[in-house]
Amino acid sequence: MNKTINNALFTDFYELTMAQGYWKRGINDHTVAFDYFFRRQPFGGGYAVFAGLGTLLDALARFRFCADDLEYLDSLGLFDQGFLEYLETFKFNGNILSAREGEIVFPQEPLVRVEADLVQAQIVEGLVLNTLNFQSLIATKAARIWLASGKGTVMEFGLRRAQGGDGAMSASRAAFIGGAYGTSNSLAGKVFGIPVLGTMAHSWVMSFPTELESFKAYADIYPKGAVFLIDTYNTLESGINNAIKVGRDLAKNEHNFGVRLDSGDMDYLTRKVRQKLDEAGFPEASIVVSNELDEMIIEHLVASKAPIDTWGVGTKLVTGGEDAAFTGVYKLAAMMSEGIEKAVMKVSDNPDKSTNPGRKRVYRLFDDASMARLDIITLEDEVPKAQDNLVAHHPAGDYRRLTITPSKVEPLLTEVMKAGENVKGLPSLIESQAYMASRLENFDSTYLRLLNPHIYKVSVTEKLKELKLGLIKKYLRSH
Amino acid sequence: MNKTINNALFTDFYELTMAQGYWKRGINDHTVAFDYFFRRQPFGGGYAVFAGLGTLLDALARFRFCADDLEYLDSLGLFDQGFLEYLETFKFNGNILSAREGEIVFPQEPLVRVEADLVQAQIVEGLVLNTLNFQSLIATKAARIWLASGKGTVMEFGLRRAQGGDGAMSASRAAFIGGAYGTSNSLAGKVFGIPVLGTMAHSWVMSFPTELESFKAYADIYPKGAVFLIDTYNTLESGINNAIKVGRDLAKNEHNFGVRLDSGDMDYLTRKVRQKLDEAGFPEASIVVSNELDEMIIEHLVASKAPIDTWGVGTKLVTGGEDAAFTGVYKLAAMMSEGIEKAVMKVSDNPDKSTNPGRKRVYRLFDDASMARLDIITLEDEVPKAQDNLVAHHPAGDYRRLTITPSKVEPLLTEVMKAGENVKGLPSLIESQAYMASRLENFDSTYLRLLNPHIYKVSVTEKLKELKLGLIKKYLRSH
Repeated sequence: MNKTINNALFTDFYELTMAQGYWKRGINDHTVAFDYFFRRQPFGGGYAVFAGLGTLLDALARFRFCADDLEYLDSLGLFDQGFLEYLETFKFNGNILSAREGEIVFPQEPLVRVEADLVQAQIVEGLVLNTLNFQSLIATKAARIWLASGKGTVMEFGLRRAQGGDGAMSASRAAFIGGAYGTSNSLAGKVFGIPVLGTMAHSWVMSFPTELESFKAYADIYPKGAVFLIDTYNTLESGINNAIKVGRDLAKNEHNFGVRLDSGDMDYLTRKVRQKLDEAGFPEASIVVSNELDEMIIEHLVASKAPIDTWGVGTKLVTGGEDAAFTGVYKLAAMMSEGIEKAVMKVSDNPDKSTNPGRKRVYRLFDDASMARLDIITLEDEVPKAQDNLVAHHPAGDYRRLTITPSKVEPLLTEVMKAGENVKGLPSLIESQAYMASRLENFDSTYLRLLNPHIYKVSVTEKLKELKLGLIKKYLRSH
Repeated sequence: MNKTINNALFTDFYELTMAQGYWKRGINDHTVAFDYFFRRQPFGGGYAVFAGLGTLLDALARFRFCADDLEYLDSLGLFDQGFLEYLETFKFNGNILSAREGEIVFPQEPLVRVEADLVQAQIVEGLVLNTLNFQSLIATKAARIWLASGKGTVMEFGLRRAQGGDGAMSASRAAFIGGAYGTSNSLAGKVFGIPVLGTMAHSWVMSFPTELESFKAYADIYPKGAVFLIDTYNTLESGINNAIKVGRDLAKNEHNFGVRLDSGDMDYLTRKVRQKLDEAGFPEASIVVSNELDEMIIEHLVASKAPIDTWGVGTKLVTGGEDAAFTGVYKLAAMMSEGIEKAVMKVSDNPDKSTNPGRKRVYRLFDDASMARLDIITLEDEVPKAQDNLVAHHPAGDYRRLTITPSKVEPLLTEVMKAGENVKGLPSLIESQAYMASRLENFDSTYLRLLNPHIYKVSVTEKLKELKLGLIKKYLRSH
């Protein structure tokens, strides 16, 4: 489907110059492990929804250099023929562990672990970050909007304001995982099997001599569930009255209808429109609103009990609004040499920016009410168990710690790609959406609040903490 | 290149239901004119840079429904066989007038006029908006960054934080039009001919036993213009010293080098690094910085004379940062029937949201110092001329007006597509970049200020004002 990201030139140029460096030194086939994780929750919120994995795995399986890519690289005068021949057979055949799409996730914890040879792991960096960052951003935004609407009907209407073609397509996909009911994007409907819906545009209304004629014409063609756009001229003086007139005709054949408002004060107008519809005997007629909505506006409208049935959300949903990028990064964690793992890390003056070394796993610990209490990052061979007394350390490596005896322990990472092949039975989009909804149930509402949420704890084991502090000491001595 | 946006299903679903409506009523082949314009300058700025036209024209020429698109539509149970057959031969064969890519543009003025049959003009709406909105947003951001850097060397490094594959590709293209010197995106380098550049990642440095070894290895392979990333461990205690050590070896063969800083206080660190480089006898060694830069940070660093040679800008450049969408809209302006033009408009309680009716042109009026004084929107048959006394009215249609005698008058819109075929000789990307730079010269610096700029005037002619007020009166009477 997406040709751009199937092309292995879709990578930062330094990956290629570094790759040639590794190749020239003969270390290109050393196995390494990179972690994908993020640093900060977007939108000032307390959780994120992981998404983009399906897109990433599809693209990885097809990620190749074609002949004219290599010709292009050759034309730059920086690459040896031998290296270009090596790229000709480039194919990602590493292993990937990952969280499920729709998982509720938190900063610092590895969400994806890529194990591959050094060059493969490096060249796919841009693809990993581009796909997971964007879709996780949008799935998170969608979940916030969906929760704010009281788990209502949210339509993604963002194609025209999205950041390019994939900006629209990937946003439709991710918004669906995050709880959107459908999309206006016809191509996303076809490609992803997402329900498509739409009403009418102002230009439809304007292309008829009168508003009433435009509604009549529409109802003639689409008598079932027609939704009339009532704000082209005047919502309360003209639009709603014409909708009711045409609605009476539809009612003769027992067809329901709806109205859409795209401008004005939604709290005031939807009440007035609801009142007119009810008085005219149409309590079933639905009200759709759209117009620069986001989760904050929706939360206020829901709190004030504005009678709204469907929320059309465009720009803010498909771009993230003020927060247009997810802070996901991809960091080297371990290098394997002759079967021995060498843990590595990036040391920073800022403890939050120092990475966690080694090959790791993540577990979610639940209490006996099945509520998530904390996530713990472990080394590869540590497996925390239910009923154990576990000591959880703050990832900054300072004195903060707590002891917990979980009722249930679940691994967040499972194998999704082995030697370049997708593992069978990965979930469908609708399964990922359902998974997201079910996983949200495990979190106290204070973690899900739109603003100033309770911070969910992500911790590290004693062994991981000791490994990290040991490496930091070593670095401080040697540099 | 971009398969997604060549697919005519890349359209909001309501365009298709409306299209069937027009087709059923037999008015699908009526010629109409739509305007693309925007309502508000992004980033709190005073100007925008128009971009995306080349991408749009390429996609329009290929915009088709394929067999499985029609199968998909058929499966929805809403469309007649006759209509689906009609879509099978769908091809955009309209005419397009447009501003040039790289043009400096302002709210309300039509930047693109699409004249086509009603169904064609409607179905391409999403494509027009998606491509022009995103690229104009990013070209504008790039120009702001480029001006803030003192027209310096700006590198677009955004692939990993961009909104999907096209989010990266289109951003590379638009950033180049807006003044970026190059990109890190290898595929954008190949597809658009944009210079690609890159240095090294922290993972390169970390994959060697010591920082010094990693620099030496890099310099062995890329002795010309190597750029060392000096903040992996400690910029001032370790990174810069190791860079200078390796730099001394390079100097023996008269090879220059550079350093890159990716964290920390750039104002402080670049001064210290510059001082060390100068003291070591490397006044030519360049300093590259990156780390969540935007035009405001760059303006401050330039004002404080931080010694920075190259600016690597990622996230904020390719997403727009806090302002992630351009406010471009696509509105019906006229319907032609039997050779007679019927002007139409959207009336809103807010005069700024009422559209300008009829087929229109835009002219830029210059004073005798070749500075742009105002833009005027005219009806199709009006041609303002140099030395004429022209009356310019405020587009809100109130009493505000001024008289101006321009020294030079330039049309902003020219024909770029005729009967579905691109006009020959459209500018290359590098020509569009040069055009952008030359057009900025026509504006007083007060219009280009990053914050609270002087507002450039966009006005309408007497005839257009009268047409608009006449239509508003008519609407107010009839609704």
